[in-house]
Amino acid sequence: MRLLTTIGFDADDTLWHTERVYRLTEARFAALLADYAETEDLSRRLLETERRMLQFYGYGRKGFMLSMIETAIDVTGGRVPTSVIRELLSLGHEMYADPVETLPGVRETLEPLSSEYQLVLITKGDLLDQEQKLARSGLGDLFHAVEIVSDKTAETYRRLFARHGNGPDRSMMVGNSLKSDVVPALEAGSWGVHVPHPLTWALEQADPPQDRQRFRQIEQISLLPEIVREITSEMPEK
Amino acid sequence: MRLLTTIGFDADDTLWHTERVYRLTEARFAALLADYAETEDLSRRLLETERRMLQFYGYGRKGFMLSMIETAIDVTGGRVPTSVIRELLSLGHEMYADPVETLPGVRETLEPLSSEYQLVLITKGDLLDQEQKLARSGLGDLFHAVEIVSDKTAETYRRLFARHGNGPDRSMMVGNSLKSDVVPALEAGSWGVHVPHPLTWALEQADPPQDRQRFRQIEQISLLPEIVREITSEMPEK
Repeated sequence: MRLLTTIGFDADDTLWHTERVYRLTEARFAALLADYAETEDLSRRLLETERRMLQFYGYGRKGFMLSMIETAIDVTGGRVPTSVIRELLSLGHEMYADPVETLPGVRETLEPLSSEYQLVLITKGDLLDQEQKLARSGLGDLFHAVEIVSDKTAETYRRLFARHGNGPDRSMMVGNSLKSDVVPALEAGSWGVHVPHPLTWALEQADPPQDRQRFRQIEQISLLPEIVREITSEMPEK
Repeated sequence: MRLLTTIGFDADDTLWHTERVYRLTEARFAALLADYAETEDLSRRLLETERRMLQFYGYGRKGFMLSMIETAIDVTGGRVPTSVIRELLSLGHEMYADPVETLPGVRETLEPLSSEYQLVLITKGDLLDQEQKLARSGLGDLFHAVEIVSDKTAETYRRLFARHGNGPDRSMMVGNSLKSDVVPALEAGSWGVHVPHPLTWALEQADPPQDRQRFRQIEQISLLPEIVREITSEMPEK
């Protein structure tokens, strides 16, 4: 049996831009509330709300919208006018109109890999958000399977790489989040390839892994086939 | 091969109460806005907002919270005070604290079926909402698989009953929504068992199916084993 059969890909900021629309919306949120608080304070308070509500809201646009509204009320001691809340809802609605823009080289890189490996999209976030983005990205045909999960742990990767391949040790996970994509995949015994993105949400940051044997880092996704070749030629066929 | 191998179950208001907390919250929403509009008008406007935003928000508590806030602002022409928006957020937070209460006879009915059939939970809604409710329901161990989907069409049932069984014609779907659980399952060629619930969301209502050969209706879930027995004894073994 081949020693690498499955490659998992994160979606947001690995295959397409996501964080930038959140950052842009956050800047507009701060501008709307500029009369009430400093930008930096607003960002900190928003992040606090997101962190506190994460267990209820999970990831995605709806939770972000609710967190903006809640922070706006809290930070102004309830003095924020309703017209501003209305504006915050509109900012949220505009996020839904944001086009899905794939990162450079994504399609060109994944297409040849898809004929040799089972590609699986493994993404956290809101179910409908992610289905809509995948449909709009035009990448849907490249994936053998799509798994939208509420969290990414070592157990998640063990389960999904058993379902869509030959177990975690014959699988690789590729993504921009050390915390969600790389570290737990390594813990499950898979390869973990980190493709850093200049914008990564504060709650997704983590230290690089200690055990670096199956860890790789590349500057952009177009370097992935090289990593795959290097790894598969290193491994003796059993 | 056995002629019925898989039974799919809807979750909300089939296995546990859901709609009642939405109705209760809606009544409190109307009470909070009583100075601005008639209850009936408020309910109608809220439903309109939910319907309009369904393609973006999908199902679940977060979308409902956002729809309440949006309706409150619209219906008052922006005159609703921020303190009421704050209250609406709190109503939403209280929905998350609502305990998951299974409907009468659910565990007793599913437990013996689970040793003979593959039971699959097939539910629409917010991913995290539904995972949390399943965990709190204590029913998780009865299911061979859990599928949380953004919509339920005939194609959904074809795909899921192929994945978790022997295709739609050897499968049965059980639920309280004619529109989502019964009609599309019948269309896929499965058995469709309707267990009406006194509270069913307006957007889930539909006419009973025309083709009644594989359609059954029972008053409560404890009558399901009888239906299963009747069906399986009718069908000649191939």
